[in-house]
Amino acid sequence: MKNNKLTPQALKGFRDFLPEEKRKRDFVIKKIVETFEIFGFEPLETPTLEYAALLLGKYGQEADKLLYSFQDRGGREIALRYDQTVPTARILTQYQHVLPRYFRRYQIQNVFRADNPQKGRYREFTQCDIDIFNSESPISDAEIIATTYFAFQNVGYPEINIIINDRQLLFSILRPCATSKVDVFSLIQSIDKLAKIGKDQVVAEIVQKGIKQDQAEAVISNTLKTKIIPSLQNIIDLATGLGVPKQSIIFDPTLARGLDYYTGMIFEVQLPGYTVGSCGGGGRYDKLIGQLGGLDVPAVGIAFGFDRMVEAAEYFKLISQANFITQILVTVFDKNNLSTSLSATSTLRKNGVKTELYPAFDKLSKQLKYADKKGIPYVVIIGPEEAEKKMIKVKEMKSGEEKTQTIEDAIGYLLSQFGF
Amino acid sequence: MKNNKLTPQALKGFRDFLPEEKRKRDFVIKKIVETFEIFGFEPLETPTLEYAALLLGKYGQEADKLLYSFQDRGGREIALRYDQTVPTARILTQYQHVLPRYFRRYQIQNVFRADNPQKGRYREFTQCDIDIFNSESPISDAEIIATTYFAFQNVGYPEINIIINDRQLLFSILRPCATSKVDVFSLIQSIDKLAKIGKDQVVAEIVQKGIKQDQAEAVISNTLKTKIIPSLQNIIDLATGLGVPKQSIIFDPTLARGLDYYTGMIFEVQLPGYTVGSCGGGGRYDKLIGQLGGLDVPAVGIAFGFDRMVEAAEYFKLISQANFITQILVTVFDKNNLSTSLSATSTLRKNGVKTELYPAFDKLSKQLKYADKKGIPYVVIIGPEEAEKKMIKVKEMKSGEEKTQTIEDAIGYLLSQFGF
Repeated sequence: MKNNKLTPQALKGFRDFLPEEKRKRDFVIKKIVETFEIFGFEPLETPTLEYAALLLGKYGQEADKLLYSFQDRGGREIALRYDQTVPTARILTQYQHVLPRYFRRYQIQNVFRADNPQKGRYREFTQCDIDIFNSESPISDAEIIATTYFAFQNVGYPEINIIINDRQLLFSILRPCATSKVDVFSLIQSIDKLAKIGKDQVVAEIVQKGIKQDQAEAVISNTLKTKIIPSLQNIIDLATGLGVPKQSIIFDPTLARGLDYYTGMIFEVQLPGYTVGSCGGGGRYDKLIGQLGGLDVPAVGIAFGFDRMVEAAEYFKLISQANFITQILVTVFDKNNLSTSLSATSTLRKNGVKTELYPAFDKLSKQLKYADKKGIPYVVIIGPEEAEKKMIKVKEMKSGEEKTQTIEDAIGYLLSQFGF
Repeated sequence: MKNNKLTPQALKGFRDFLPEEKRKRDFVIKKIVETFEIFGFEPLETPTLEYAALLLGKYGQEADKLLYSFQDRGGREIALRYDQTVPTARILTQYQHVLPRYFRRYQIQNVFRADNPQKGRYREFTQCDIDIFNSESPISDAEIIATTYFAFQNVGYPEINIIINDRQLLFSILRPCATSKVDVFSLIQSIDKLAKIGKDQVVAEIVQKGIKQDQAEAVISNTLKTKIIPSLQNIIDLATGLGVPKQSIIFDPTLARGLDYYTGMIFEVQLPGYTVGSCGGGGRYDKLIGQLGGLDVPAVGIAFGFDRMVEAAEYFKLISQANFITQILVTVFDKNNLSTSLSATSTLRKNGVKTELYPAFDKLSKQLKYADKKGIPYVVIIGPEEAEKKMIKVKEMKSGEEKTQTIEDAIGYLLSQFGF
């Protein structure tokens, strides 16, 4: 093993977020949380560690291997959060007499999976879920779709498509083709790959699973020509009634979603132009919470693909660094003029300007270089001349332009530059 | 051991935050982050898991026992974040060529300690730190004090006291009394208890450690009559220059702070009226980062006592639930009138009103009861009569008062109620 004392590094599959990256993530979170709150969702936080018994056997055998579990000093078997659904199932049972009848919660926390790290797959990553629990009504399906659409819109993506289907439709088409060896979920998992690998390869895969060629082909062509059912059309109509543009909701009978537990409407979010993949997906899962050992609670929700949302926000240039960086560096000249720098700093901050005070009596050129390297767009200069005249000099770093003016005028000028 | 499948529960020492509590915490975080950004601090996030070797031996032998560490499936010894300083020391080394010369970062993440849980002490809790790295200047000490003061002010506490002292002062008084058995840090740890247990008990403790009675008494009386030194007065003057009121910075020669690593200015935040204890503390620690295996980097910072800040914010009633809860429930009548409820919901949300749509055609009384139980202050009622007249009825839950008006008027009325 490497000597980690000599080469400081994060664990493989784990990430450090330095300020620039962290701010992008915070921007996306802020925007979607704004929408969640407007849509009447409430925040929830559960512990990072849980009893391992709560998590084991809940995600399937393969997943159990990906669980970070260990024994604590008290001999308890404990494990790190693997997802947010199982802890929420615990919450729904444990606090059933406290929670509202229809619990609409959002939850944004990190989860841990001892998976093989690869591009876009990490061992610690942020999950961001919204769900409505205990309502079987299509109104709740529509609420989830509308919240999703407007959350994405609030981040600013130019175009948002909600691809939608219903598991019941897939069940009715695929059940007649299923055999004792190849069950309907196995077929769904193959259908799920249609967009990715194409019709021929999916047919080949189904044949390999043990279905005859002609039947495999029939499965695909039947799926492709499926018509929408009234219950799904109703959900779409409700969502458009809640303001989602009609053309943004697209029925796709081949949308399958890999996970077994969906029982009704399923959907995915696509951002045309951003081709890496879906930026979120969800649907109705009326049996899962009960299966997880919780109460029998119908549910509908979505998991946002947070990392991809951040990547797509960057791709579409939605995150203007100017909104985040420190806006002004106040330089210092010497001890005698320091108090003027301090009071200018204080006044700027009181007016909401993001201001840094340089902490050393370095040469002005060095202080300017510091601002430049950090990307701070304006520098306030207060030397003996300025201090005596009760003026300050503002230098715009990009153009090099300098303006000597009163502190009040300078603040007005700076605030207008930042769109206050 | 208990059968945790039957009684769903969080691990001892870990907490679930249901919406009401979570919102209080989010409120405090939002307020202090606002200030951090205004004061030019930048966000940082590090992984929850690190190589155990990075964390072991960094906090002392006792602390090593409190570390949650284990072997992952790849045979790596890994551990959960114990604090934010050691991972930041790694960051300072690893990214030294990327980070600005003076790195001002804030970091708000959970840390894990396998400590004995007791009132106010948890095994997972939120740490909130700001620090300025690589500056030895008293300007940076003052920046930390000012940021702290205004962060507390932004949360809204009625009175904020910064209790301040300097480790060098304590060293100069205590060093002559220290012996080979009772070193200066041991004396500091006793002095630290003065406010809590009183002079007599501290003298007794020092005597028990092996110092003669008369000398122990001299230690205390010398400490008590210590005068401020110019370097500390300078920091105070700089902080007041940055806008901190003079009377809010109080020199206290007995302030010691338990931790060994401080090298200069030390301070604590007290909120008069809230008597549970200090709500944050920090100071200058110029050697620590180097000792932690990082580069030789002087530093000054503060750790906010986040749980206490939330508790104190509640104690001083700074968190108006009205700012957080869902503001309006839109009821539904039947299928025929549903579209009017949907469009009202959509319009309210577009105007920034936090709106929930009831998801079932229950009796109105049941829907009202739901709003009442959830504490939603207004309910929109749209029955056939209202729908026909293109009006909506707004019921104020507290007074029971009802107003039938156009949707536009209702929105105007509701927005004015929420102070938009």
